[in-house]
Amino acid sequence: MSDRLVPNLGKCSLQSPIKLSNTVGDGIANYIRDEDLVRHDVHVRAGEVTDLTQFFEKAGPREKLYFAPQHVHAAIVTCGGLCPGLNDVIRSVVRCLWYRYGVRRISGVRFGYRGLIPDYGYDIRPLNPDVVDDIHKLGGTVLGSSRGGGDRTSDIVDSLERLNVNILFTIGGDGTQKGSLAIAEEIERRNLKVAVVGIPKTIDNDLLFVDRSFGFDTAVAQASHAVTAAHTEAHSSINGIGLVKLMGRESGFIAAHTVLAVHEVNFVLVPEVDFDLEGPNGLFAHLEKRLAERNHAVIVAAEGAGQKYSAAEGTDASGNRKLGDIGIFLKDAINAHFKKKGIEVNLKYIDPSYIIRSSPASPVDSVYCDRLGSNAVHAAMAGKTRILIGMVNNEFVHIPTGVAIAQRRKVDPESSLWRDAIEATRQPISMVN
Amino acid sequence: MSDRLVPNLGKCSLQSPIKLSNTVGDGIANYIRDEDLVRHDVHVRAGEVTDLTQFFEKAGPREKLYFAPQHVHAAIVTCGGLCPGLNDVIRSVVRCLWYRYGVRRISGVRFGYRGLIPDYGYDIRPLNPDVVDDIHKLGGTVLGSSRGGGDRTSDIVDSLERLNVNILFTIGGDGTQKGSLAIAEEIERRNLKVAVVGIPKTIDNDLLFVDRSFGFDTAVAQASHAVTAAHTEAHSSINGIGLVKLMGRESGFIAAHTVLAVHEVNFVLVPEVDFDLEGPNGLFAHLEKRLAERNHAVIVAAEGAGQKYSAAEGTDASGNRKLGDIGIFLKDAINAHFKKKGIEVNLKYIDPSYIIRSSPASPVDSVYCDRLGSNAVHAAMAGKTRILIGMVNNEFVHIPTGVAIAQRRKVDPESSLWRDAIEATRQPISMVN
Amino acid sequence: MSDRLVPNLGKCSLQSPIKLSNTVGDGIANYIRDEDLVRHDVHVRAGEVTDLTQFFEKAGPREKLYFAPQHVHAAIVTCGGLCPGLNDVIRSVVRCLWYRYGVRRISGVRFGYRGLIPDYGYDIRPLNPDVVDDIHKLGGTVLGSSRGGGDRTSDIVDSLERLNVNILFTIGGDGTQKGSLAIAEEIERRNLKVAVVGIPKTIDNDLLFVDRSFGFDTAVAQASHAVTAAHTEAHSSINGIGLVKLMGRESGFIAAHTVLAVHEVNFVLVPEVDFDLEGPNGLFAHLEKRLAERNHAVIVAAEGAGQKYSAAEGTDASGNRKLGDIGIFLKDAINAHFKKKGIEVNLKYIDPSYIIRSSPASPVDSVYCDRLGSNAVHAAMAGKTRILIGMVNNEFVHIPTGVAIAQRRKVDPESSLWRDAIEATRQPISMVN
Amino acid sequence: MSDRLVPNLGKCSLQSPIKLSNTVGDGIANYIRDEDLVRHDVHVRAGEVTDLTQFFEKAGPREKLYFAPQHVHAAIVTCGGLCPGLNDVIRSVVRCLWYRYGVRRISGVRFGYRGLIPDYGYDIRPLNPDVVDDIHKLGGTVLGSSRGGGDRTSDIVDSLERLNVNILFTIGGDGTQKGSLAIAEEIERRNLKVAVVGIPKTIDNDLLFVDRSFGFDTAVAQASHAVTAAHTEAHSSINGIGLVKLMGRESGFIAAHTVLAVHEVNFVLVPEVDFDLEGPNGLFAHLEKRLAERNHAVIVAAEGAGQKYSAAEGTDASGNRKLGDIGIFLKDAINAHFKKKGIEVNLKYIDPSYIIRSSPASPVDSVYCDRLGSNAVHAAMAGKTRILIGMVNNEFVHIPTGVAIAQRRKVDPESSLWRDAIEATRQPISMVN
Repeated sequence: MSDRLVPNLGKCSLQSPIKLSNTVGDGIANYIRDEDLVRHDVHVRAGEVTDLTQFFEKAGPREKLYFAPQHVHAAIVTCGGLCPGLNDVIRSVVRCLWYRYGVRRISGVRFGYRGLIPDYGYDIRPLNPDVVDDIHKLGGTVLGSSRGGGDRTSDIVDSLERLNVNILFTIGGDGTQKGSLAIAEEIERRNLKVAVVGIPKTIDNDLLFVDRSFGFDTAVAQASHAVTAAHTEAHSSINGIGLVKLMGRESGFIAAHTVLAVHEVNFVLVPEVDFDLEGPNGLFAHLEKRLAERNHAVIVAAEGAGQKYSAAEGTDASGNRKLGDIGIFLKDAINAHFKKKGIEVNLKYIDPSYIIRSSPASPVDSVYCDRLGSNAVHAAMAGKTRILIGMVNNEFVHIPTGVAIAQRRKVDPESSLWRDAIEATRQPISMVN
Repeated sequence: MSDRLVPNLGKCSLQSPIKLSNTVGDGIANYIRDEDLVRHDVHVRAGEVTDLTQFFEKAGPREKLYFAPQHVHAAIVTCGGLCPGLNDVIRSVVRCLWYRYGVRRISGVRFGYRGLIPDYGYDIRPLNPDVVDDIHKLGGTVLGSSRGGGDRTSDIVDSLERLNVNILFTIGGDGTQKGSLAIAEEIERRNLKVAVVGIPKTIDNDLLFVDRSFGFDTAVAQASHAVTAAHTEAHSSINGIGLVKLMGRESGFIAAHTVLAVHEVNFVLVPEVDFDLEGPNGLFAHLEKRLAERNHAVIVAAEGAGQKYSAAEGTDASGNRKLGDIGIFLKDAINAHFKKKGIEVNLKYIDPSYIIRSSPASPVDSVYCDRLGSNAVHAAMAGKTRILIGMVNNEFVHIPTGVAIAQRRKVDPESSLWRDAIEATRQPISMVN
Repeated sequence: MSDRLVPNLGKCSLQSPIKLSNTVGDGIANYIRDEDLVRHDVHVRAGEVTDLTQFFEKAGPREKLYFAPQHVHAAIVTCGGLCPGLNDVIRSVVRCLWYRYGVRRISGVRFGYRGLIPDYGYDIRPLNPDVVDDIHKLGGTVLGSSRGGGDRTSDIVDSLERLNVNILFTIGGDGTQKGSLAIAEEIERRNLKVAVVGIPKTIDNDLLFVDRSFGFDTAVAQASHAVTAAHTEAHSSINGIGLVKLMGRESGFIAAHTVLAVHEVNFVLVPEVDFDLEGPNGLFAHLEKRLAERNHAVIVAAEGAGQKYSAAEGTDASGNRKLGDIGIFLKDAINAHFKKKGIEVNLKYIDPSYIIRSSPASPVDSVYCDRLGSNAVHAAMAGKTRILIGMVNNEFVHIPTGVAIAQRRKVDPESSLWRDAIEATRQPISMVN
Repeated sequence: MSDRLVPNLGKCSLQSPIKLSNTVGDGIANYIRDEDLVRHDVHVRAGEVTDLTQFFEKAGPREKLYFAPQHVHAAIVTCGGLCPGLNDVIRSVVRCLWYRYGVRRISGVRFGYRGLIPDYGYDIRPLNPDVVDDIHKLGGTVLGSSRGGGDRTSDIVDSLERLNVNILFTIGGDGTQKGSLAIAEEIERRNLKVAVVGIPKTIDNDLLFVDRSFGFDTAVAQASHAVTAAHTEAHSSINGIGLVKLMGRESGFIAAHTVLAVHEVNFVLVPEVDFDLEGPNGLFAHLEKRLAERNHAVIVAAEGAGQKYSAAEGTDASGNRKLGDIGIFLKDAINAHFKKKGIEVNLKYIDPSYIIRSSPASPVDSVYCDRLGSNAVHAAMAGKTRILIGMVNNEFVHIPTGVAIAQRRKVDPESSLWRDAIEATRQPISMVN
């Protein structure tokens, strides 16, 4: 059996309060069954044998529930850095629990996993549809967030027991979901009946098996605004260079998409593709050529790009490797290069940073968040655990947490995305000498 | 063989000027081969046999071309109503032809198929990267558009011969692509070597086999703005009712997505789902109940909804059935109902109409348009014809025009989209008595 | 003495809790004194004698108060149609009362004057800084609004007595402020000590003596969006005509400013300037000429324009004269004209209506609303009554209500505003035969 | 006579092609006469004698011109940093010259004064309405800009002679207008008949005698976006501190207005108001108190604030004093302070920098720019020189350049603006010990 399928906490024997159908063709949506699967890999090359095990379980409301709504105490926690749509997801989870299932005990954990660790003092607030009514119009998370704490597994499970929580929704990135998996395993060791359902948050869109992560479209839209500013500056100056640093620690998806959205970038640098600064095929040489021809240039660098030049040491509280600041590094290096050459350039550096990630969700992201949240609730009520909700080929699915976090998704230099991105910039396929 | 595969104009024997690789793992994108296929249906139900013929040919640059760039004269035509992203597509086609393939004869046909019909006087303008440099920042189409003319097949093919056009890009909807298919068939009858490649435009997102059509995300974002206004009005009045008519002649996708984006709609009406006004389970009864409980309500109606009440007669110049105006009809009917009942209501009706479709593309749509345009060029240069460029499961593909226009895509009342949309409104599954 | 000066309810003898200075040059803002005046008319023509009586009392915090904060019960009411910034004003009044003066009894009257009339049932809710914290991010008014009721003077004053309200803030337009004046006069007749301070709301910007009304800049920005859409449609069609109806019942300020903002309008029609449709100097003739030269045209009509053609009969609940719908009228008349002439035109009509007025305030309007609200509170605490807060030559002032509502402000056809607007359209100075 | 009045190049004896009226009441705008004056100071304190000499000449079309349009060669130059609305002003000048006066020789000088200095190679491009048609939709300046060069007076006047330019429009800030004055004086010395008319550009709004400078409203709107992001970040973290650096080298107008627009700032620091960091009344003490009470805080610092702490040395190419970076300084100082105290804070620093100034103009700014440009043309055609176009009490006027640049406008700590700004933050009147 595929490692993509997920076990339940136990047998589902309670009738769902959501009235759907089991008949195709009666004009009413059908309950989803655990046998409904979604294929991940859609590529076929003539003569190849397709791997038929690459399926994910389809998400959605089940006819039979594991939990009786009147006995559910659900808790929601948001962890790590901000991402557009956090409040939309919280709102959707609360509304689906309350209105569709009749759950009345919903708790918001304040400031990430810390809100579940006694040292910091519990920080829990009751949630209901009134409290969350307008929160999707604001950026950030009304629950607050923090980094770290996910390794305090035992303390957190103690707290869940003490608070009598039997469903935990964890909204967060890689580190958070590692914590979430550890929590679920500790729950299993203690033989508790607590479902842990994750909603993956990664503004960098670097989640394996998932078409796009929530907040990503909003991030690209905000990033486009910054890159347009850089282009305007570059275009209005003598040998103007606009340089923008965008998010993307290990994956350059925001950079690649923004380049395709803005149409005015000449060089895009991402962590997945090496480049040299010096030498006949280095960035400097190509930049000089571009300036000679067109008098201005725009460069977009993902924050994880060029770490061979700017790497720092150590890790942050979420366990992420510390990066050198490629933006400042490039700004100084480019200025120094042209100064040495005696060529006047006017470099304008933009680091939009928090402006991007604290934005409210765009309408398209709002739709996505709303559906992510509902599907997380449907999964939890059916006793699914140790899973993330994802979207694969436009279908919402259950992804086993362990499978999802095994590896990050990266921009494949051989993919059509990267091919189209560098086609849009017209930079060389490789800038390595 | 699957009817999803597409024949070429002839053998491709010219080496492409685009330098890519044929080796996986060398860090350079590979040429796409005609044997690279993309699966459309990703659903699997245990025990079912998957239909292995449901494949589409993958789009992208081929190693061998049919056309020699120096002999290409490409023409681009935009037809029908406006849609966000038209200029992005035009720009992308021009840039890809010019920069990637070195094509230097590119013509823009003014005002739809009419620009190719002698009665109206030819109206053609030369295009190059300078002309299209900033057009993506503007809504509409710089080429102009018009309805109809697609049935003047013979005249149009005469013109293509006279102008020596050997690649025709048709950007337009259902009617346009029917015309495009007829043109391609006439070309075949005459044994000409002219590729006809369509880029499907449908703001309603009602194209079969395609994940989403370009401009759709922008349309949802603009529609959301109008619905938020309706909610504000409704919320600020005594028994306020906000009523918004949105695009969607035969398919309610914009309405369904907007409802999920805005979170503040109470009733959504689409062409695919019947509803009654009167009776204990009709809209009026549910609306009364909602007002009694919450003092305000928001209704979104797709223009094709409720035609059993408001149908008109005849067809327009594109051959589309004329619709009655469901917005005005509902406005009057609701006001009359409550007047009869002696209940004060304050109904505010919003018809955002052209504000939505004339908007410039959002960044996410810009990315999509850019890639659609390039892939259309890659297809045409390889001699593909009678196809549309579409996106299936996040991959760009060639869809045979005849297959694509056989039927419109509709909101399936049993789909998870509709299930989630009415869950967001909390309206009854059915409002038929 | 000038009729521009305002009497107090009585002697101000209480020290204000706001700590300011009475010394110029100590770096601390000074208390405003009733002797501080602001000149309205700034025009001087050599040889003319300036009328020295045209002064308004300057608004701002006084050193001595009439009301003791602990005895204040303030009520806020919003009346009439929506306008961007209503919530900003409410928020500012509440915050200034609470934080600056320490007032703790603040009531929000629901749904306009009706909330103070017993027949409708009192509808009052307590307000404090927490309740209003985020309301400025939403359009509309959290208090709700309605038309009419302002003539129920005696009932309203009864209610104020019963509720023990001693400061009433009325946020509303012409009709509201007439009501507000009647209420203040009835209060005086009964010898009550209740201050009535108005904050004038008129999205049309038609208030005499006031530079611009709140929400006006936001309205122009939103209107510009609609006119840009009309231009895009017109530009993309054969003989495209974009027609937009904008607010402006008796004054064409929104239309005139929008025309200057958008730069793409060819004809602007306002209530203050007569025009003919037919004849050699009529709109139709000029429109034909424009289409012949440029193939597209954009027309902006204020809703009160051309009433000689489209006038309706009667008045609405606020006592405003009912207008015929000039937008629909022009749409039909223009289409009929060109049909008769056998000229193909493609007219696209946009009525952005509620989308404009329900928008949240722009940042510039937010600044203005914030300051209007504070100055209203400063005035009321000093016992000022029967006044509106206005801005004259960039200074906030007290305008006696009777003076302000005596007449509407109109676009003067001889003003530089109108001169510049028609210069931007390049339409003839007069389109009367 | 007032030093506010301006001499002409010579007698105006040519009839203007613009048809206006000399009769009040005929419904047609009147020609402006040099005797039409506008009062600057509108404050009156009972008993004080008003200074009747504080008048400015009113701007607008004159009946008689100095220049014959067919002999005019006008040049436009943009200098210094970007500012929203530059393209709007250029467009307006070109259109007014071309359409209203029939001038056909209009030159755009590239990259500031440098385009007029032989060493750099002349860089001039012809302008006409087609070239500038859509430029107002883009940020930046299509002419390009640069700093410096304004001191090369003799070279520049040589160039004007050689190019036969008789009207020069200079769009730029303080340094530019100093240069512009020197150029005009050199022109007078040489007894040339060249009009020099400035359009003052200062995103900081620090121009004496002018209500607001163009681009200012757009800048406040963009700055508000950044401050909202900072608030979102602060609010979502444990002891979150949002810190934003805004433009404002010597004047804190953007900061003061943004604080009033956003409603969510707790401390605003401007160049005009001193503050201490340490001590019982310093920023740190108040910040600690705020965090203890509300767990988050937002700080806005104008770039020129706190230079006693962070001053740098030297001047830039425009002759502006170099500033230390107060943003980075405060970020480090606040983090160090709380680390020392053992209090966890999460400070997020945002420097929106170029994103603000490169934005296209908002609709309200577009209106203003359009009218500034026209009035500059009217002035120049009437032979006015050595003036700037400004808006005083909502009227466009001619301000003698020497008067305007004598001093910068600053935020008066005793003004109602600053009073209202710190009332909105609720920070102490003084944070000096």
